[in-house]
Amino acid sequence: MMAFIKVVLLTTFAAVMVGCSSTNLRGTGDLGVVIERASGSVQIVETTNRTVLSRVTGLGDLSHASVVYSRDERYAYIFGRDGGLTKIDILTSKIVKRIIQSGNSIGGAISQNGKQVAVSNYQPGGVKIFDSNTLELVADIPATYGSANKQSKVVGLVDAPGQRFVFSLYDADEIWLADLSSGKPVITKYKNIGRQPYDGLITPDGRYYIAGLFGEDGLVVLDLWHPKKGVKRILDNYGRGSKKMPVYKMPHLEGWAMTEDYAFLPAVGRNTVLVVNRHNWKHLMSIPVHGQPVFVMARPDGRQVWVNFAYPRNDTVQVIDTEKMEIIKVLKPGKAVLHMEFTPRGEQVWVSARDAGKITVYDTENFNSITTLPMNKPSGIFFTHRAHRIGL
Amino acid sequence: MMAFIKVVLLTTFAAVMVGCSSTNLRGTGDLGVVIERASGSVQIVETTNRTVLSRVTGLGDLSHASVVYSRDERYAYIFGRDGGLTKIDILTSKIVKRIIQSGNSIGGAISQNGKQVAVSNYQPGGVKIFDSNTLELVADIPATYGSANKQSKVVGLVDAPGQRFVFSLYDADEIWLADLSSGKPVITKYKNIGRQPYDGLITPDGRYYIAGLFGEDGLVVLDLWHPKKGVKRILDNYGRGSKKMPVYKMPHLEGWAMTEDYAFLPAVGRNTVLVVNRHNWKHLMSIPVHGQPVFVMARPDGRQVWVNFAYPRNDTVQVIDTEKMEIIKVLKPGKAVLHMEFTPRGEQVWVSARDAGKITVYDTENFNSITTLPMNKPSGIFFTHRAHRIGL
Repeated sequence: MMAFIKVVLLTTFAAVMVGCSSTNLRGTGDLGVVIERASGSVQIVETTNRTVLSRVTGLGDLSHASVVYSRDERYAYIFGRDGGLTKIDILTSKIVKRIIQSGNSIGGAISQNGKQVAVSNYQPGGVKIFDSNTLELVADIPATYGSANKQSKVVGLVDAPGQRFVFSLYDADEIWLADLSSGKPVITKYKNIGRQPYDGLITPDGRYYIAGLFGEDGLVVLDLWHPKKGVKRILDNYGRGSKKMPVYKMPHLEGWAMTEDYAFLPAVGRNTVLVVNRHNWKHLMSIPVHGQPVFVMARPDGRQVWVNFAYPRNDTVQVIDTEKMEIIKVLKPGKAVLHMEFTPRGEQVWVSARDAGKITVYDTENFNSITTLPMNKPSGIFFTHRAHRIGL
Repeated sequence: MMAFIKVVLLTTFAAVMVGCSSTNLRGTGDLGVVIERASGSVQIVETTNRTVLSRVTGLGDLSHASVVYSRDERYAYIFGRDGGLTKIDILTSKIVKRIIQSGNSIGGAISQNGKQVAVSNYQPGGVKIFDSNTLELVADIPATYGSANKQSKVVGLVDAPGQRFVFSLYDADEIWLADLSSGKPVITKYKNIGRQPYDGLITPDGRYYIAGLFGEDGLVVLDLWHPKKGVKRILDNYGRGSKKMPVYKMPHLEGWAMTEDYAFLPAVGRNTVLVVNRHNWKHLMSIPVHGQPVFVMARPDGRQVWVNFAYPRNDTVQVIDTEKMEIIKVLKPGKAVLHMEFTPRGEQVWVSARDAGKITVYDTENFNSITTLPMNKPSGIFFTHRAHRIGL
């Protein structure tokens, strides 16, 4: 009997130790999450040995889902299309909390100090802000506009330095700046900024917020160092132009590639990447590409820009050399390439191919495929180093 | 008896659970290490609640020590003045391995893929490269120069994209580029670059390596996108000038502050911060400051530059507004301010005051002291997000 108990004791002890130290105890700087859009699940991955660690299920509708991370890189906040906001512990692969916070949401952001998570909503419009610890509602900002007090869809939500969030009201033609440094939101509204802002981005230093217009050609920029100066119109040749082309998929402005001197911008509805001077926002040149660009992303050292494309030409990735300003490589990662994510220092890039059911990891120096990982209709890929960046 | 055994079992189980989940199981994105130079120890800290987690002792001579992190942000590699290289597990606060790899070393770097740790040595000169897992020697690069085959002190060692390291030979007037992409080092030597390069830095995108010259006025730059073009002389007014001033402490070139358009550079031996145009490396203006600057560091959004000073004026920190180009704040964190480290998104800065025996954490928005942490003669502060940056 004693021997039996001793065995139980040791086995229990060993099981706990294994569960703790080999499985869970690890650094979180090389972890990431891959969205499996069809099954409402994510795979937790690591980029050092390039393996899958575990799967978390029960996350609702993850089409067009996105992810931000807590400042300790332990928790992933997943924004689902069904208005779900799920907090996952990526060390234990457990759901910490899940709430349905709206009917239809499109993305989110985490405040500079990591204390607040904001979600932008389509249905009903507006932004909700939650305590990042508890997911309790901290502030509700309905996107009310006009005399009829209608609500607008909210898009292009980003964090900015100084505990601020910036976002665009698609139906209202407005950009709002929410300052939460006092604890509750103080809103500054910029009205009549141009027709139908459809997405927004912030420059890596957190200074310029840029929104793309769907209802007319052009973009607008807000200098957050001088918010009182209001928004300025830039790049009037950006957009669909006079000869309207069918737009198969709206490009992602967060996918803008910023290098030292240039921004690389997906044209709307045209098989072109636009190169823009970052210092005066003037159009420098256009690079013809394989299809309508969706994500246009710089390798962290700025030497390459990787581009994926809209349906039906979405089996291809092209790589642009940012000095020669020409395509130096064409890759075929499989059908329906939806997203790309670089490791923080740029030696690898992970590419998801939804219909091919896999992630391909490339060496960015020689374009060799290092490995492939099978996934269930993978879309977005999000590595933890985003926790340390402004506006991601 | 059974009840007793059950109690033991449960107690053991509980102890293991507590030891595992509350103490060790945590994300590593908000962790850091503070060097306690006099006692050969470090304190492991976290920036979310701003507390000390533990102390690790037995690290040898830590005067002028520096730290790099593994790509998973779990292990800190500590380079000591006595040639010691110590790998610490910051989750368990244990020394994983410690070796004495030379007689006198000054700093190190970790390769882009995280597989190799390089150390630059004064005595004997040269660079040694170790497997980051095992600390086994992978490559030995003696800094041999001239016909007498003497060895040079090595300074200004940084990592660069493409599994490369760059460093300067103080006694040989050379810069060497070591390419480890094939597994073993392939060295390119740049000779007669100028007298006594005393430190080096690499721009945040990993493109330009810049060395400061002690033996003459000026700096040299190597464009790593075009290594065959060789080094170029820039900023001939940089240095001690014709009227030699006593230099109380060499400024740190790794402390250069790079914002979007400007580099902020500590003048050598003068109470001045130089502002340089990053696009053509021309001198734009000089800002008079409190003393001889040592570290000149930009807040991550580039809106502020923080400066500390050499003995005897080293009880002060000044903050420069990068738009107005003037000092907007003077702080007195205590005697012998040695280092400053920003949190990755810039809301806090940690400042060490050696003789005051404390770290002060400031809110960078309003300059309030958020907290102070007692330490034993603290010097360098290193947060884990450095793992994700090029050249840090």
